[in-house]
Amino acid sequence: MNSGDRSDPPPPRDPEPGRLIPAHFLPVPATVSPEMQKVIAAPYGDWVFAKPRNVAEWCQLIDGYDRQAAEDSRAIRGALGVSAEEISVNGVRCHRVVPHVVAPGNDRRLLVHTHGGAYVFGTGEAGLSEAALVAHFSQSPVLSVDYRMPPEHPFPAAVEDVARVWQTMLETHDRRHAAMFGSSAGGGLTMAVVLRLKQLGVALPAALFLGSPWANIAKIADSQFANDRTDNLMVTYDGVLADSSKLYANGCPLDEPLLSPLGGDLSGFPPSIITTGTRDLFLSLAALTHRKLRASGVEAELHVFEAVSHIQFLAFPAPECATAMTEVARFFDRYLGQ
Amino acid sequence: MNSGDRSDPPPPRDPEPGRLIPAHFLPVPATVSPEMQKVIAAPYGDWVFAKPRNVAEWCQLIDGYDRQAAEDSRAIRGALGVSAEEISVNGVRCHRVVPHVVAPGNDRRLLVHTHGGAYVFGTGEAGLSEAALVAHFSQSPVLSVDYRMPPEHPFPAAVEDVARVWQTMLETHDRRHAAMFGSSAGGGLTMAVVLRLKQLGVALPAALFLGSPWANIAKIADSQFANDRTDNLMVTYDGVLADSSKLYANGCPLDEPLLSPLGGDLSGFPPSIITTGTRDLFLSLAALTHRKLRASGVEAELHVFEAVSHIQFLAFPAPECATAMTEVARFFDRYLGQ
Repeated sequence: MNSGDRSDPPPPRDPEPGRLIPAHFLPVPATVSPEMQKVIAAPYGDWVFAKPRNVAEWCQLIDGYDRQAAEDSRAIRGALGVSAEEISVNGVRCHRVVPHVVAPGNDRRLLVHTHGGAYVFGTGEAGLSEAALVAHFSQSPVLSVDYRMPPEHPFPAAVEDVARVWQTMLETHDRRHAAMFGSSAGGGLTMAVVLRLKQLGVALPAALFLGSPWANIAKIADSQFANDRTDNLMVTYDGVLADSSKLYANGCPLDEPLLSPLGGDLSGFPPSIITTGTRDLFLSLAALTHRKLRASGVEAELHVFEAVSHIQFLAFPAPECATAMTEVARFFDRYLGQ
Repeated sequence: MNSGDRSDPPPPRDPEPGRLIPAHFLPVPATVSPEMQKVIAAPYGDWVFAKPRNVAEWCQLIDGYDRQAAEDSRAIRGALGVSAEEISVNGVRCHRVVPHVVAPGNDRRLLVHTHGGAYVFGTGEAGLSEAALVAHFSQSPVLSVDYRMPPEHPFPAAVEDVARVWQTMLETHDRRHAAMFGSSAGGGLTMAVVLRLKQLGVALPAALFLGSPWANIAKIADSQFANDRTDNLMVTYDGVLADSSKLYANGCPLDEPLLSPLGGDLSGFPPSIITTGTRDLFLSLAALTHRKLRASGVEAELHVFEAVSHIQFLAFPAPECATAMTEVARFFDRYLGQ
């Protein structure tokens, strides 16, 4: 008698393993600075829920976001006395970001910045806030790459641009005094560029700073579920983030390591400092990146800020921002020398 | 005209700042090992919701918990070939926990363990799982202190017992080869003992391992709200944890530094490795401890495991447990020498 002789119903499918987390009120904690409390209390932005249906709507969304981000960036540079000048490096648009005080010897450093913005936001001045903060706190000039982005220039344009800038700058700079850094998409991009440089056999930076790195652009890590709506900056993967990842990937599988470098071979990576917050939608990506780097034999350290959502450790002038940036500066001092 | 002339209604009180997080389904992630997936999928334990009303009910709850924990501890020791022997150190009951292999030179080490269990659970063999894991992975003998606990012996009995053991053992051991460690209440207690040793002017350990430290026994840190019900081991502060903290404090203010050492002066603390998970109800306490130690000039490093709830980095035999313990062993090798 084979199984076809019986008309048993199919076995019940197991429900998806997991659990329902009930609704709960999440207060603004007393364990952060008053400045950070304001950041934490801020409402969700509308832009995270945007669903642009075509190129024109993408451009409109990006323009609106970038106009505000450029204004914020100018305010930060003004407050810190950091200058920014647009330059071209081997055909790639960049900004040279110079702090009020460059520490003795730091003028020979090369700090290459890849801005965040989900691979769609952050063009021009809009991408310079983090560059200004790192320049100020590390007392070093920064070269921020204004890499090409979708809708017009999807993957791998961004990786190519940053790799080209890096290779060009290495002609006049010593890798032992050179770092690369970025947060969110900029953190993922920095990792992707290092993978690309490994493929090309090009000398790698001496240190990385990866802030809330978008190290895997699929929705796969636990905090992308657990911190949904708890993170008040990025809020959810299921908004503009999911769409921007597809726009950037442009049909390429999301697990391609130059898109999702967490899946790549991280052996030989430079020493890395990774920064995130307990409410970060990408907390798990930061933790997983830290673990995979260490499992690959790479020096890597992790800093997690209390109640801080996605990239809010950049929320100048909160003292948590100064602390986060001071840790990055210390790390660069340790691995780049003077 | 003074304000009494007007009968304006009082201004409306601001609602408590914060936000309502809607109910959401939290799947078991694919980003952890199959063994850890089973741990993550496990249902909440009944004990976390217990509300013992008197000493008899406390004792009944503790007995039930400890019977299971002792069985788990014997299974782990059996699997690893770790022995445990009850001894008395200057009148304090302890267990000498010895791994199958003691690395050359490690027999002179002193690793003092303070077990977890919310300051009520973990008597006797029930408190030895973590001691066995650290002994095995560090290839060093461990001295686990079976400190006195409530209901009979509230604060500061536990601090006194561990401090006494430490002082006694220092007569025959060199602090340069000595560490102290513990998780949950054991992490908080280790910190409290170091504060107490500072008060007494006694030599401090050369390194600490603090796992998910209960560094503040009030409900104050963000993850105690944000990870409520997301953490499937500790689940909530508003169950047995809130009651056990009061039972332990015995009327002493919860912000007394020997109860909540995160509020104490951490300057001069030994180099510390801190371990937690993204779902840990105490994630924020680990992050805040890391930050405060570093702000106090102490070498401190943080390890955060993906989707791991309170102390689940001890979930032997998940590979995440081996990774966490290997990091602790490396840290001890670095700071204790051979």
